[in-house]
Amino acid sequence: MFIGAQVSLYPMTSDFIGVILSGLEALAPYRDRLRIETDDISTLMVGAPGPLFDAIRDLFARTARGPAHVTLHATLSRGCPGEPDDPICRCETLTRAQDLPLTERQALALAAVRAAPVLGVEIDVQFSLYVMGEDRHMDKIYGCIDFVKTSGCFLKSKNFCTRLRGDAGAAFETVRQAFLRFGPAEGHVTIDLTASANSPSPR
Amino acid sequence: MFIGAQVSLYPMTSDFIGVILSGLEALAPYRDRLRIETDDISTLMVGAPGPLFDAIRDLFARTARGPAHVTLHATLSRGCPGEPDDPICRCETLTRAQDLPLTERQALALAAVRAAPVLGVEIDVQFSLYVMGEDRHMDKIYGCIDFVKTSGCFLKSKNFCTRLRGDAGAAFETVRQAFLRFGPAEGHVTIDLTASANSPSPR
Repeated sequence: MFIGAQVSLYPMTSDFIGVILSGLEALAPYRDRLRIETDDISTLMVGAPGPLFDAIRDLFARTARGPAHVTLHATLSRGCPGEPDDPICRCETLTRAQDLPLTERQALALAAVRAAPVLGVEIDVQFSLYVMGEDRHMDKIYGCIDFVKTSGCFLKSKNFCTRLRGDAGAAFETVRQAFLRFGPAEGHVTIDLTASANSPSPR
Repeated sequence: MFIGAQVSLYPMTSDFIGVILSGLEALAPYRDRLRIETDDISTLMVGAPGPLFDAIRDLFARTARGPAHVTLHATLSRGCPGEPDDPICRCETLTRAQDLPLTERQALALAAVRAAPVLGVEIDVQFSLYVMGEDRHMDKIYGCIDFVKTSGCFLKSKNFCTRLRGDAGAAFETVRQAFLRFGPAEGHVTIDLTASANSPSPR
C-alpha cells in the first residue's frame, strides 16, 4: 500500500513566503511519521492516513488563523498500482473497514467526525472522491455522499464536487473518512481537495 | 455527455482581487460557448473541450504575464454518470478518437500539441488523469503518459502526478489531449490540474 498527497498552500498576500514558512512549522510533530519532500509546485507527504490528514489539517489551520485569504490544494492517493508498497503507509482502519456493510461504515465515519478535535478555525472545503478499477464506482461515491450529508459539515453539492463548511477539525476528519471507508481496501482511490479560509468573497 | 471544470485562480499578492478580475476579462471571447458560474471557492465552466481548455489557458496566461506568482487549479470532468446530458458539451473529437488504436491516438495527440498556438508565456503544470468505471484503468493512464513524454512539455514524473513545463499553448494542449484521447468516449474521466507561473522557488 502506498498512501500520500501532493500538497500546496496558496496565501493571497505579497508576504506569501512568510506565511508558507510559518505554516510549515505545523508539520514538525509529524516529520517522523511522514516522508516529506518539497519542490517548486507542491510538497509530497507519504504516510498513513492518521498523520497524513492531521498534518495537512494543522498546516492549513495554522495559516487560516492569520488575516490573509489562504487556500490549500491536495491531490490525495491510496493504492495507486504504479506506486511501491511502503511500510510507513500501513493503516489498520483501512484494512478492516472494508469487511463491513455500508451502513456500518457510514456510522463509524460519523462517529469519527463527532470525535474530531475542535480547532476553533472555520474553513470551507471542496472535494471530489474518485474510486478507480471498479465497474460500479458511483455506488461507492453515492454511499460516501450520503455519509457526508450527515457529517454536520455538508454545505452543498456542486458539479464535480461537494462543499463542506465547518471547524477545521471536523471538516478534515470528514474528508479522511471519505478517503478511508468508501472504496476497496486494496483499491485505487484519490481525492482532489481544496480548502479555503478568510475569503473576501460573499458566502 | 457533460463536460466541465471547477477552476480557481490564486495570485500570491495582496492585490489578488485586481489580478483575478483582470484575468477574468480573458474569458470574454468564450462566454457564448461556455456556461460560467462563480462562487467563493471556484468558477464552474461547462462546455466542449475546445472552448473549455482555451478559456482556462487564456485565463491563466493573462495573469501569468504579470509579475506576481500565480497558480491555477482546475478539477476537470467528462462523462460523470451523476451529471445530465448537455448539448453545449458536444465534442466530435471525443466521439471519434476512441475507435482508433492507441498508437494512432498518441500520434493525433502529438500533432495537436505541435499545432498549438505559441502564447509566449512559459508555465509549469502538474496534473493527474483518472479513468473510472474500468477494470484496467492503468492501461489508459500509461498510454497517456507515453504520449506526454513525447509532447515536448514533459518535465518529470512525480508520485501521483506528472509535471510539464513549456509555453502555455503547448502545455494546455497536452492536458486537453490527455483528457480527450485516453479513456472511453462515454467513460468517466477526470483531471486534477495545477498550473504555476512566476514562482520564486528554485526550479
